Amino acid sequence: MTALELSVNQFDLVSNMFSLAIAAMGAAFLFFILIRPRVAPSHRIAVTITTLVVAIAFYHYWRIWDSWQGAFEFTGGVYQSVGAGFNEGYRYVDWLLTVPLLLAELVLVLKLPKSTTRSLLWRLIIAAVAMIVLGWPGEISDPDSTARTVWGVLSTLPFLYILYVLFVELGKSLGRQEEGVSKIVDGLRYLLLATWGVYPLAYMAPSLISNEATAEVVRQVGYSIADILAKPLFGLLIVWIAIIKTRADNQGGANPELSSEPVAH
Amino acid sequence: MTALELSVNQFDLVSNMFSLAIAAMGAAFLFFILIRPRVAPSHRIAVTITTLVVAIAFYHYWRIWDSWQGAFEFTGGVYQSVGAGFNEGYRYVDWLLTVPLLLAELVLVLKLPKSTTRSLLWRLIIAAVAMIVLGWPGEISDPDSTARTVWGVLSTLPFLYILYVLFVELGKSLGRQEEGVSKIVDGLRYLLLATWGVYPLAYMAPSLISNEATAEVVRQVGYSIADILAKPLFGLLIVWIAIIKTRADNQGGANPELSSEPVAH
Repeated sequence: MTALELSVNQFDLVSNMFSLAIAAMGAAFLFFILIRPRVAPSHRIAVTITTLVVAIAFYHYWRIWDSWQGAFEFTGGVYQSVGAGFNEGYRYVDWLLTVPLLLAELVLVLKLPKSTTRSLLWRLIIAAVAMIVLGWPGEISDPDSTARTVWGVLSTLPFLYILYVLFVELGKSLGRQEEGVSKIVDGLRYLLLATWGVYPLAYMAPSLISNEATAEVVRQVGYSIADILAKPLFGLLIVWIAIIKTRADNQGGANPELSSEPVAH
Repeated sequence: MTALELSVNQFDLVSNMFSLAIAAMGAAFLFFILIRPRVAPSHRIAVTITTLVVAIAFYHYWRIWDSWQGAFEFTGGVYQSVGAGFNEGYRYVDWLLTVPLLLAELVLVLKLPKSTTRSLLWRLIIAAVAMIVLGWPGEISDPDSTARTVWGVLSTLPFLYILYVLFVELGKSLGRQEEGVSKIVDGLRYLLLATWGVYPLAYMAPSLISNEATAEVVRQVGYSIADILAKPLFGLLIVWIAIIKTRADNQGGANPELSSEPVAH
């Protein structure tokens, strides 16, 4: 990594974005724990998974914040990179765990037939892992190297496959969902497309923006915003679906243990 | 310990693997706590034990990460080992506690007859402790010393005994298990064989790989992957068995407190 020089405002902007991400992940974690009893046990697995996702991201943003502070030294009115620099690896370790989990929570909350669920889960999880693992060698390559481009393109292939599965295959097998659920699923898919679309842009920032400091700031801010939308906000929509399904079950009398009416004897 | 020189990528790879282990153990801990109510009280002891295992490992990987950061200094573009170096002891302390617990959770989740359970537990726990204790003197010996080989071989004997008990004796006493359980037990035994097989290879890395830096990286990455598979993944399969057994009991009406049907009066 070459030496970087950031202005105080640039350094602070990134620090504050990382801190925002820590606060957002922590708050989402608390919310998902507190809202849990409102979801029937049969719909809780998706809530459990989204709780894990924000907990894992909370941990990683804590490490990311620490690594950022240690990677620069304030000298002569600017922040200069020191030592081995900022460790981008935490993001990839985070995604390796959270991206498969995010896809799993989306599939599981829908309560599709068992065989459909299993087939979707396997393919989405393998594609997600491939996407992350193929991105990493490019991330640690030089900004303008062919390696960065090649790994970036390879990593995009499983990303496109995931989009195909979510928009084409999942659409076909959605079947009869409770009122309002299909609309939220649409929202979830577009949220995923919009936020995951930020990652390739942030990945390409070092190649697209010639000023190294600006490129680094854009990258880190972009990744952080995308993570906040793709994890806490995505999780909120998942919990919303689980609550709609709990209510629908209660009206049908299937979950008497959560019904507010006393059980008739 | 001789001085080691690692490239930035080598040092970061190990740091990131340790961090991945921290995140995986922490996420597994949360998951086992959240899933706990889905398991009938009579099957919960195995879930309790696997929760302890990942909590203990979470703590140790935190220490391991810290020890790794303190063991190297970034100078002249590379990471050089400083001071007394990395403390491998945390791993052995971890295994001394977690390996007997892992074997205990496997035996306890099966609900074998009491006398069989007691006999299996005693023998497996003593063998596990012997395996770890006999490995330690070899671990801190010089890479090519006879001591390393002798202690390694001594430590392998209880390992082979454990495999004999799990594959021969346990197989005989499995008896009638719920549908699907025998398959998961098979999976657990092979997971154990595959992951525990990594430990001797990682132990031998300093003797097998002549480049000291490469050997250290392979060792630490190997141990970490093996720990992630042998603890969180192993625990997931244990919880799966406990849930299958809970469901089977519910169908038989043995656990009315967990049944979704209202109790008739």
